[in-house]
Amino acid sequence: MNDIHHDLISFVEDSIPMHRWLGVKVVEARPGFAKLRLPFRDEFRGNEERGAMHGGVVSVLVDVCGAVALWTHFGPKDKTATVDMRVDYQRPAPFEDLLAEGEVRMMGNHIANVHVRVFAASMPETQLAEGRCVYYVKRVEQG
Amino acid sequence: MNDIHHDLISFVEDSIPMHRWLGVKVVEARPGFAKLRLPFRDEFRGNEERGAMHGGVVSVLVDVCGAVALWTHFGPKDKTATVDMRVDYQRPAPFEDLLAEGEVRMMGNHIANVHVRVFAASMPETQLAEGRCVYYVKRVEQG
Amino acid sequence: MNDIHHDLISFVEDSIPMHRWLGVKVVEARPGFAKLRLPFRDEFRGNEERGAMHGGVVSVLVDVCGAVALWTHFGPKDKTATVDMRVDYQRPAPFEDLLAEGEVRMMGNHIANVHVRVFAASMPETQLAEGRCVYYVKRVEQG
Amino acid sequence: MNDIHHDLISFVEDSIPMHRWLGVKVVEARPGFAKLRLPFRDEFRGNEERGAMHGGVVSVLVDVCGAVALWTHFGPKDKTATVDMRVDYQRPAPFEDLLAEGEVRMMGNHIANVHVRVFAASMPETQLAEGRCVYYVKRVEQG
Repeated sequence: MNDIHHDLISFVEDSIPMHRWLGVKVVEARPGFAKLRLPFRDEFRGNEERGAMHGGVVSVLVDVCGAVALWTHFGPKDKTATVDMRVDYQRPAPFEDLLAEGEVRMMGNHIANVHVRVFAASMPETQLAEGRCVYYVKRVEQG
Repeated sequence: MNDIHHDLISFVEDSIPMHRWLGVKVVEARPGFAKLRLPFRDEFRGNEERGAMHGGVVSVLVDVCGAVALWTHFGPKDKTATVDMRVDYQRPAPFEDLLAEGEVRMMGNHIANVHVRVFAASMPETQLAEGRCVYYVKRVEQG
Repeated sequence: MNDIHHDLISFVEDSIPMHRWLGVKVVEARPGFAKLRLPFRDEFRGNEERGAMHGGVVSVLVDVCGAVALWTHFGPKDKTATVDMRVDYQRPAPFEDLLAEGEVRMMGNHIANVHVRVFAASMPETQLAEGRCVYYVKRVEQG
Repeated sequence: MNDIHHDLISFVEDSIPMHRWLGVKVVEARPGFAKLRLPFRDEFRGNEERGAMHGGVVSVLVDVCGAVALWTHFGPKDKTATVDMRVDYQRPAPFEDLLAEGEVRMMGNHIANVHVRVFAASMPETQLAEGRCVYYVKRVEQG
């Protein structure tokens, strides 16, 4: 993994208070793609009876993963802002680590789309949720 | 506030680990409507340079508020599951308490819609985000 | 209704082939708001057994109404492009004229949000669908 | 193509007035997947200056294609209803035939998700739009 991505990983994991609080880790990052792991913690439990994680954990993971995938295409001086975000919840999330994969599906001059898929770490074949994040992007000249 | 809503508030604030972790409080709950407060905490910060809260805080608040508004119509034996959720981010969320108001917009036999609006506590006139939550609902006969 | 809006109505109803084909009419237009009527035609039928209009009629009406509401804020030289669009279908649309009301909910420097509600003409109190349109906007200096 | 799918194609193309009006054709249908072609017609033009099709044509095609993909899993007695529909517009649609591919991404007991992608017929590698349709489904016992 090259230095650019070391910088991105350090930025994502260490520089953003919300990310430290959640405990999110970058597993892989390359141009247009990011894979994250969210280690399970007891505080993520939603409905105790059903043994399911709180849906908000999945939505915040979609939000974070979409942004990291987007940032693989941008430098620290560029501007990005989330326009909207959507999640389809497909299966309850069990009490274990979650994985999320974000893929940039469209990169325009002003707007970008990222598609995010969420899995349980022990069942990487079974999707728990799909998300879509839309961003306003503005590249700032560097140099 | 009647006993039914005392039960709902206690359930929302105390019985769900994710809600305790976030620190979310129910300000108001009546049939078809819920208003929540999310007290600010340093861990909610996203982009330090822009002084904005992390977008994921807004999305998780939309998710929680939509569910509480929905639950005003249901008892503990009924079944509800989130189908999908969307957020339009309209303004950056400043470093202060957030308020969210959820209103049930459609209650069908199987599907319900809740509309959620998010504000900063000091600017209740200026909307920061709008969300929409869609639920599958199944009423279980009581008695 | 002032001349600006006469121009907008003429543009919406006459200059866009798709609008002529659908037969959409502008009932009201003022800054940040547009109300349209879509006269019923037999071709809009979807499921004959259920007596419901095709869902695509509702979605295309949301798309058109959102754009007209947006255009009340822009001149012919400005640029606008739809980023995304969503519809919540709440009740089947009966075989009669439809009304749609679009309201600009956020107008930023680059992004705008329009909220659209759809009704049957004979039941203006009962919402059939709610939509949300997100636009990229760029104001071109006039003069 | 087997008889079941002949029945589905005939139903989609001939029995639904809105589909006849649009002129939509089924190119391929197998369990969980449908591919449609929408032949270009002059009435689909939106913005003449930009040479782009009306966005509503894309949204109605997403709506139709999602339903056909869904119906590959259901018989004539089963019940399906669209809950919500979303479209991300990624590139302007040129004045030519459109293709749409719908893929069932989740089939639950009550809820189904279909993902739809739209292309221009001459550029099958370049996606113009992505859509997502969510359905309430109820299987009726046959026999």
